Amino acid sequence: MGRVTSTVRWAYLGPEGTFTEQAACELASTLPEPPELVSAAGVSAALAALRSGEVEAACVPLESSVEGAVPLTQDELIHGAPLMIVAEAYVPVTFDLLVRAGTSLDDVRTVGAHPHGLAQIRGWLADRLPAAQTVVHASNAAAAAAVAAGELDAAAAAPVAADTYGLIAAARDIGDVRDAVTRFVLLRRPGPPPAPTGNDRTSMMLSVDNEPGALLAVLSEFATRGVNLTRLESRPTRNGLGDYVFLVDAEGHIADPALADVAAALTRRGALPRLLGSYARRSGAAAPAARYATDSAYAAAARTVAQWQNGAWS
Amino acid sequence: MGRVTSTVRWAYLGPEGTFTEQAACELASTLPEPPELVSAAGVSAALAALRSGEVEAACVPLESSVEGAVPLTQDELIHGAPLMIVAEAYVPVTFDLLVRAGTSLDDVRTVGAHPHGLAQIRGWLADRLPAAQTVVHASNAAAAAAVAAGELDAAAAAPVAADTYGLIAAARDIGDVRDAVTRFVLLRRPGPPPAPTGNDRTSMMLSVDNEPGALLAVLSEFATRGVNLTRLESRPTRNGLGDYVFLVDAEGHIADPALADVAAALTRRGALPRLLGSYARRSGAAAPAARYATDSAYAAAARTVAQWQNGAWS
Repeated sequence: MGRVTSTVRWAYLGPEGTFTEQAACELASTLPEPPELVSAAGVSAALAALRSGEVEAACVPLESSVEGAVPLTQDELIHGAPLMIVAEAYVPVTFDLLVRAGTSLDDVRTVGAHPHGLAQIRGWLADRLPAAQTVVHASNAAAAAAVAAGELDAAAAAPVAADTYGLIAAARDIGDVRDAVTRFVLLRRPGPPPAPTGNDRTSMMLSVDNEPGALLAVLSEFATRGVNLTRLESRPTRNGLGDYVFLVDAEGHIADPALADVAAALTRRGALPRLLGSYARRSGAAAPAARYATDSAYAAAARTVAQWQNGAWS
Repeated sequence: MGRVTSTVRWAYLGPEGTFTEQAACELASTLPEPPELVSAAGVSAALAALRSGEVEAACVPLESSVEGAVPLTQDELIHGAPLMIVAEAYVPVTFDLLVRAGTSLDDVRTVGAHPHGLAQIRGWLADRLPAAQTVVHASNAAAAAAVAAGELDAAAAAPVAADTYGLIAAARDIGDVRDAVTRFVLLRRPGPPPAPTGNDRTSMMLSVDNEPGALLAVLSEFATRGVNLTRLESRPTRNGLGDYVFLVDAEGHIADPALADVAAALTRRGALPRLLGSYARRSGAAAPAARYATDSAYAAAARTVAQWQNGAWS
């Protein structure tokens, strides 16, 4: 509201000591002038601050290799006022069992975490603390805060939360799945996308008619143009069971002729209500473009068709 | 363990007063001798009781029209010892704001529910109780119990929970999405599927290679045989981001020639590690089979090919 500030601010899904803070730090550190990071009380609060102009960007979790999509983020991207993904970050997710100094594993009667966190340590708990009672919290970091306050014996949380809340690890890396990783995205208000880097990803929301073969036809638009998908996730539209949108990541940038061609074809079908962003890819490398999908193949074909249209039937 | 009992027992995701109890009652009421319904502390507990033989069937939620897939149920079907879906039920999901008698809406400072329940009343809360603090509970019914115990002012829960916990509704139907519905399934240990009814559904777990065009090829196996899909949901395999299985519902029964043919083709590709069940469909009617996908078309084609193989080139 006309406030003058010299510092760019980014919101992230708080509280402090979360994996999201770690992802935001990582993304911020790539900039010449790192932004000020502001903790938000939830995904919706972070994105509301972004939409209102209070912050310039927001960092939120998008998907986990264990728990799958983060519904709140996906629903905001689908149903909320449009936002643009401008970057991604991958953070390995490990859980420590955090306790107050002086508490041993034998003393632990109650273990708290976000329901997703509890789900990820189920096996370890059954094995090592079968009698412990689980207590759901709004976040793993909130559970750590409850331990610090003496309301809870132990919290399953990010190792970084030990420092934030003055706790120690009674056990390390207690997640049931090894090599768990969460993917975070940095969102901005819509505008020109970041420049292509040669190894980019484009996220899209696809609307597929609830009729036989509709998804097949949409996927064919990608395949026939040599554009590979790296992700396809279903989300309900809220219009009733069986009615879905699909969140899709494709290799390439909206500035690439092949991907632009797919986007145009999907738009003609009414199947691409939202482009969610083109940005540098941080995991995996793009496969070489198919012979018929390179920029030069597109340019040469456009020249040939223009010649035919102009009567130059050489 | 050799225990003799005259009553068949089914487990359901408890506690009492949940939508799952309602679904289990509905499914049980169709039987000549209704089973005894036993509340289980969680989805995993209900399915463990089923796998161990302690109960004959288990009723659990599979997907919601608002929140999407129920991860715990889906992961049990994917990763746990195999179980078979034998029936489905659809229950409309409405939330009441439950309080102790004598509490008015103005007195409500704290509102509890499962995180999914809280997500579904976000808009109503922001509008009507913007200052109320939300408190996560392991289930909406657990929040209702906390209200009854005087630990919480209000719970967002199923209308049926008011009776169970001696509460009254301070506000009715407070969900943000109208016509929300949850789909429940009844699971048994693997065995012969229920007989075809003419309007059936078959659930499958598809394993799709993480390479270009793999999903397209798998979907083509259904499309070319005229088998329609009514659901396609992605779930991570836990092997890393970008590696998914798909949970698919198809029209038809594994006893139908066209669906059996699809299942054989997918099995040849290694794409159908688990058939999850064939059972009567409770929402929507099957479209008439394509001309080339009817039972008689299959029988006639098999005769023709056999004649060619036998040298009868009429």
